[in-house]
Amino acid sequence: MSVDLMPNRFRPGEAELPQREAHLISRRDAVLGASYRLQYRKPVHFVRGEGMWLFDPDDRPYLDFYNNVPSLGHCHPEVNAAMAEQAARISANTRYLEPQLVDYAEKLIATFPAELDRVVFTCTGSESNDLALRIARLASGNEGVIVTSYAYHGTSAAVAAVSPNLGAAVNLSPNVRIVELPGPAGIPHDQAADFFEAQVRLAIIDLQRRGIGIAALLFDSIFSSDGVWIDPPGFIAGAVDAVREAGGLIISDEVQPGFGRTGDHMWGFARHGIVPDLATLGKPMGNGFPIGAVVGRSQPMEHFGQTARYSNTFAGNTVGIATADAVLTILQRDRILDSVVSVGQYLRHGIEAIAAELPGIRGMRNAGLFFGVDIGFEDSLPAQRRAMALDLVNAMRDDGVLISTTSANEDALKIRPPLICQHEHVDKFLEVFHNSLGRITS
Amino acid sequence: MSVDLMPNRFRPGEAELPQREAHLISRRDAVLGASYRLQYRKPVHFVRGEGMWLFDPDDRPYLDFYNNVPSLGHCHPEVNAAMAEQAARISANTRYLEPQLVDYAEKLIATFPAELDRVVFTCTGSESNDLALRIARLASGNEGVIVTSYAYHGTSAAVAAVSPNLGAAVNLSPNVRIVELPGPAGIPHDQAADFFEAQVRLAIIDLQRRGIGIAALLFDSIFSSDGVWIDPPGFIAGAVDAVREAGGLIISDEVQPGFGRTGDHMWGFARHGIVPDLATLGKPMGNGFPIGAVVGRSQPMEHFGQTARYSNTFAGNTVGIATADAVLTILQRDRILDSVVSVGQYLRHGIEAIAAELPGIRGMRNAGLFFGVDIGFEDSLPAQRRAMALDLVNAMRDDGVLISTTSANEDALKIRPPLICQHEHVDKFLEVFHNSLGRITS
Repeated sequence: MSVDLMPNRFRPGEAELPQREAHLISRRDAVLGASYRLQYRKPVHFVRGEGMWLFDPDDRPYLDFYNNVPSLGHCHPEVNAAMAEQAARISANTRYLEPQLVDYAEKLIATFPAELDRVVFTCTGSESNDLALRIARLASGNEGVIVTSYAYHGTSAAVAAVSPNLGAAVNLSPNVRIVELPGPAGIPHDQAADFFEAQVRLAIIDLQRRGIGIAALLFDSIFSSDGVWIDPPGFIAGAVDAVREAGGLIISDEVQPGFGRTGDHMWGFARHGIVPDLATLGKPMGNGFPIGAVVGRSQPMEHFGQTARYSNTFAGNTVGIATADAVLTILQRDRILDSVVSVGQYLRHGIEAIAAELPGIRGMRNAGLFFGVDIGFEDSLPAQRRAMALDLVNAMRDDGVLISTTSANEDALKIRPPLICQHEHVDKFLEVFHNSLGRITS
Repeated sequence: MSVDLMPNRFRPGEAELPQREAHLISRRDAVLGASYRLQYRKPVHFVRGEGMWLFDPDDRPYLDFYNNVPSLGHCHPEVNAAMAEQAARISANTRYLEPQLVDYAEKLIATFPAELDRVVFTCTGSESNDLALRIARLASGNEGVIVTSYAYHGTSAAVAAVSPNLGAAVNLSPNVRIVELPGPAGIPHDQAADFFEAQVRLAIIDLQRRGIGIAALLFDSIFSSDGVWIDPPGFIAGAVDAVREAGGLIISDEVQPGFGRTGDHMWGFARHGIVPDLATLGKPMGNGFPIGAVVGRSQPMEHFGQTARYSNTFAGNTVGIATADAVLTILQRDRILDSVVSVGQYLRHGIEAIAAELPGIRGMRNAGLFFGVDIGFEDSLPAQRRAMALDLVNAMRDDGVLISTTSANEDALKIRPPLICQHEHVDKFLEVFHNSLGRITS
């Protein structure tokens, strides 16, 4: 049985739509490529954003518990002012000297362990992962890449080819090997590290025997598209050693966990007690402005930079830099990570209380403000669990709360509010979650 | 003898620098990856931009005859206002309905021939070319790509592998075939089309005999990194037919020629009287805001969209869309293309007059406001010509005018002012060009 790779989407005819939205969708279909998918059975239509809230054309508010790009909240005035002021002054490129580029690079590097002391800017997380693979392949002299079962690392040809989450229609590279996470395989925590390392060692041997060799272990430490199977912390450490012994590099895809999403740390790899060779940044870096980066150890970064020409027209332009600088300044100044920890715990306790009262929640995992909540009854079939998760997401959308689904079976809720989320927003979320789950499971 | 792939760059110790810039460069080197290159023997340092001008920290103005990203001029107030206003309202993604995305998509599509009626947005020209290759390979079922000798199509792994301009350190794909342009090969105009088509037909046969097949002919119709060898118009038409007969697609890389750079047309392919299957957009689309697109025929676009999942987090966000919409509106409302034609002719006549008076100009080609001017004496060696072009670029920089070099031998000036360039700017450029060339050749 094949799983719909994006179950939470609009399908024409499934739900009755208001005339205004139906008309906009038909215009949209006539000009946009078929790649575009709308979320929810009844697509949402927003005209205004503010902090944790999005507003439809009738000014109805929706509580955003899904968008991890505007991690400081929608339309942050201070971030927007930094962008607008810089755009009015100059939008310089990196072939000209501009102090603000250096200032921000220094600030960003300072948030990493001392070993990671070089940065190259990009425009998107996909470009970051694509560049990191190029650096790792050149530095290692190898081509092989190891990723997790449902990993997603981006849209370029090279990263799509190491993203099994894209499904059968996107061919995987012959040089990629896939390893299972211990969590969804039901491995106990005390065996998780050995389970993971053993697979990575086998993959390395296989890559070596085919003359491909290992270039990189590439992972998103929050394992977001695998279903947020993040525990136990540190379970990847043995695999990291195995890859290094074989001459490969460690790439930590920080597009999802980075910039404080996990609360305890600015960067996701820290939760596992490891230091990667390269870290790839994206999504929340500019609170919506297209900017990403590869931060790495000098050796592979210098080897690549001295050997290959790489220039990226828009990347590192001062408008993006000023915007990202404002984001990092606010994250640090307002101690957002502390709030992520405490609000994350508050949300966790709230979901646990609902799980104790109502049926339909089979499990839950979180790091800071990234949650995976497994939906379905214990005795239900995978398709039933998936359908229940989808019903729940759409019921909550109808009640004004935005979330979506994840995991191999797409039966886990993916909950990831902007990091400025406060107790009052959690209360509202829990109220709608409780009501929707109660309706669906009764 | 190998040619320096980026001759116009800063090399430590080559020129004496002011303390302020020397200090900034040493800080820069300590945090930025070695990929970063500064232009000019004495790097430029700008803190303010306005229209055709960039200003250094001492408020000294530099006339910009090089930057093709801010094609409406630096810090365009109307474009910046559109960006800031949209950022204050909402920065929605494409999985939610937002009328402005559809409005702009319709407007953009309307500037193309009727056959090209679908658009997918990206963040950079590299992402556009990477996606176009994925679409062409899926639609054709083939892998082979044909490009010109010194083509550059971007930074992602897949497009770098079809960019011979990056030099020996970046491996080309085994699936790429390279064809020579008629201009630099010295082929007369009346034989140019046959010369080009014959090579493309041989490349197709070779790709087919190896079981690779032809996915796409990928070209920048202004052939900017090949040295602006653009003539005669239409010389690629026979090659286009040959590729289509063999089941391949035509990808017009509009990152350089698009959005009116050539003056006569909004899109570069029109100069050659052909209609491609896919056109890739980037650089000037948002006057500096990171936005690009693939515009294409429905059939390959729908085939890709229905088969493969493709989503791009930042691409199509309403802030980028509002910015690009302002750019397109101004291009059309202010009849910028007409001005490109007339100012381009004025600049051409000015350079011709200097070439008649002074030695050192061996040839010149232009389409609108994109010029390639071959530097060197008729009897000088390639290295001497290259050195002279480099001296000239640096002399003009010292006199406050920004240009750079291109072509296989890097002995052609690359002149590409913002499209708002007026006669007064051309006069200033010609004055500095005349003086610098006179000094260097005397």
